[in-house]
Amino acid sequence: MGRKIRVAQFGIGVIGRGVTKVLAQKGNMKIVGAIDLANVGQDLGDVAKLGKKLGVAISDDIEGVIRKTKPQVVIHTTSSSLKKVHMELESLIRAKVNVVSSCEELSYPYRKYPKIASRLDRLAKENQVTVVGTGVNPGFLMDAWPLFMTGVCTEVKEIRVSRIQDASHRRIPFQEKIGAGKTLKEFNELVAKGTLRHVGLSESIAMIASGLGWSLDDITETIEPILAHKEIRSDYITVKPGQAAGVKQVGYGWEKGKALITLNFEAAVGAQESYDVVNIAGTPNLEVIIKGGTHGDIATVAMLVNSIPKSIEAQPGLKTMKDLIISALPGK
Amino acid sequence: MGRKIRVAQFGIGVIGRGVTKVLAQKGNMKIVGAIDLANVGQDLGDVAKLGKKLGVAISDDIEGVIRKTKPQVVIHTTSSSLKKVHMELESLIRAKVNVVSSCEELSYPYRKYPKIASRLDRLAKENQVTVVGTGVNPGFLMDAWPLFMTGVCTEVKEIRVSRIQDASHRRIPFQEKIGAGKTLKEFNELVAKGTLRHVGLSESIAMIASGLGWSLDDITETIEPILAHKEIRSDYITVKPGQAAGVKQVGYGWEKGKALITLNFEAAVGAQESYDVVNIAGTPNLEVIIKGGTHGDIATVAMLVNSIPKSIEAQPGLKTMKDLIISALPGK
Repeated sequence: MGRKIRVAQFGIGVIGRGVTKVLAQKGNMKIVGAIDLANVGQDLGDVAKLGKKLGVAISDDIEGVIRKTKPQVVIHTTSSSLKKVHMELESLIRAKVNVVSSCEELSYPYRKYPKIASRLDRLAKENQVTVVGTGVNPGFLMDAWPLFMTGVCTEVKEIRVSRIQDASHRRIPFQEKIGAGKTLKEFNELVAKGTLRHVGLSESIAMIASGLGWSLDDITETIEPILAHKEIRSDYITVKPGQAAGVKQVGYGWEKGKALITLNFEAAVGAQESYDVVNIAGTPNLEVIIKGGTHGDIATVAMLVNSIPKSIEAQPGLKTMKDLIISALPGK
Repeated sequence: MGRKIRVAQFGIGVIGRGVTKVLAQKGNMKIVGAIDLANVGQDLGDVAKLGKKLGVAISDDIEGVIRKTKPQVVIHTTSSSLKKVHMELESLIRAKVNVVSSCEELSYPYRKYPKIASRLDRLAKENQVTVVGTGVNPGFLMDAWPLFMTGVCTEVKEIRVSRIQDASHRRIPFQEKIGAGKTLKEFNELVAKGTLRHVGLSESIAMIASGLGWSLDDITETIEPILAHKEIRSDYITVKPGQAAGVKQVGYGWEKGKALITLNFEAAVGAQESYDVVNIAGTPNLEVIIKGGTHGDIATVAMLVNSIPKSIEAQPGLKTMKDLIISALPGK
């Protein structure tokens, strides 16, 4: 196995704790540092509820942790918003450490934040490190996975991905996030506030288009409630008829009035069976199904941890998941 | 798109012609050279039946073609046997050109041919190029694809892959290759001669094990006929009851008496519906299905062509498909 890879964890929320648990069990990984604004001074093992101390105290001093513990990679899990976290990312890059982040908007930042993206890329190259955003979605299900499957195609004309999730047995914050049990008015208010929204469809569409060499005219998204037609009881809440059982969000990548890419995200309590499916129209056509779907939290933690080796090996710069896999080439 | 990638084709058989057709349609690729022992002096476009000339004459002089046409990548499609082709590969590497090969035994050569593998790796590093073996199987379905799917797992305990192919509508050489219409005696003779055998199960098992950091005690393979219980008519042949309709080959990767990896390959005329399936036992469990299966010839051509960019970008050396993707890390 060679020497252990030195990793620091930045952000000790649900995902950060999950990452810590997995890293602590991997023989080829060593957790050397922990960064957060909360629980400063406490042991990471205690905060992540590992049932043992790790000998790693949480600190709020980014540069100090990197300088003292010399990690090769930082797993960064603080926010979905690139505007909120890009200064954190810059601090890490300047400290010459590779970064794997769960920031959804970092998964493919070139479209919404071209200036931040090119700045991060330039800084990463100057400091000879990589920075990449990943997770289950964006980062895998609606971008890397369909792109990877195009590897067996000589031509790709159209891509559709659907993620259908029965949220009945997911944790309460997830059920609340998808609007389960809200009235139509409450649902629409949450949408207007921007709190009820899966972040990543536009990023995934832009990544697929870039990976396949497609120049889209436009990317659009729709969001609407999935309404309960009868009373639905989940493990935690009861949804009355007429209330929202969950959310349906669809992203489209357009070229000349045609949706070349369609990403359909549905999550609701009492939904049909969960599954993920990729449909590729091309040579050959391809339909690929993950039966029962992919567990969101576990898969996000897995993608962050499993991306560590490639984040070290890849050429310096801002990477996206499409750079780390093989997919179909542009052209007929 | 940037500048076109200069590619030469080495081996102008069924797969080599397929590669030529696809490359000729890709705007970012330029076919600059062609190598084969047959049809020397003829135009590659004529031999590949493109309906147009490519201005590329087939030559049997490996070094001459590389020196004169300066390709960045050679697509090598001459034989399944690494013993037969490793001198061809060495010539290409010494000429400082990246190589993407369909040679099944090159897909993961470290187990059967450790000396050839380390020699190719050393030579490739000395000459600052990459060499990689790929295709649909080995190269994708039973190694890269299951490994890629483990990317969403925090732990992997066991992997099973099945490829079930209804060969009724495949080309005659494929039906003959799988023993369709042979008597049991003929079938067993062909197996003994080594001509009736899918090459790659052991390579795929070794690649998965290496990718997941598993040290297997042993790798074994079984091969047996799938017998027709009633008369079966394919597009080309008729199989009588008691004759072989096709072949079932199973590869096992063993650790402490347990098969951690099981690869099941079945191809027969009149078989049940075609499909490919990956089953991962781990955290989480995963079942992924390609409905209708993957078209073997098209997918092999696609994997060869689609691997070109990574073969240029990757660090020099002998690569296997596991090096070019993200998959689960070793350890619990």
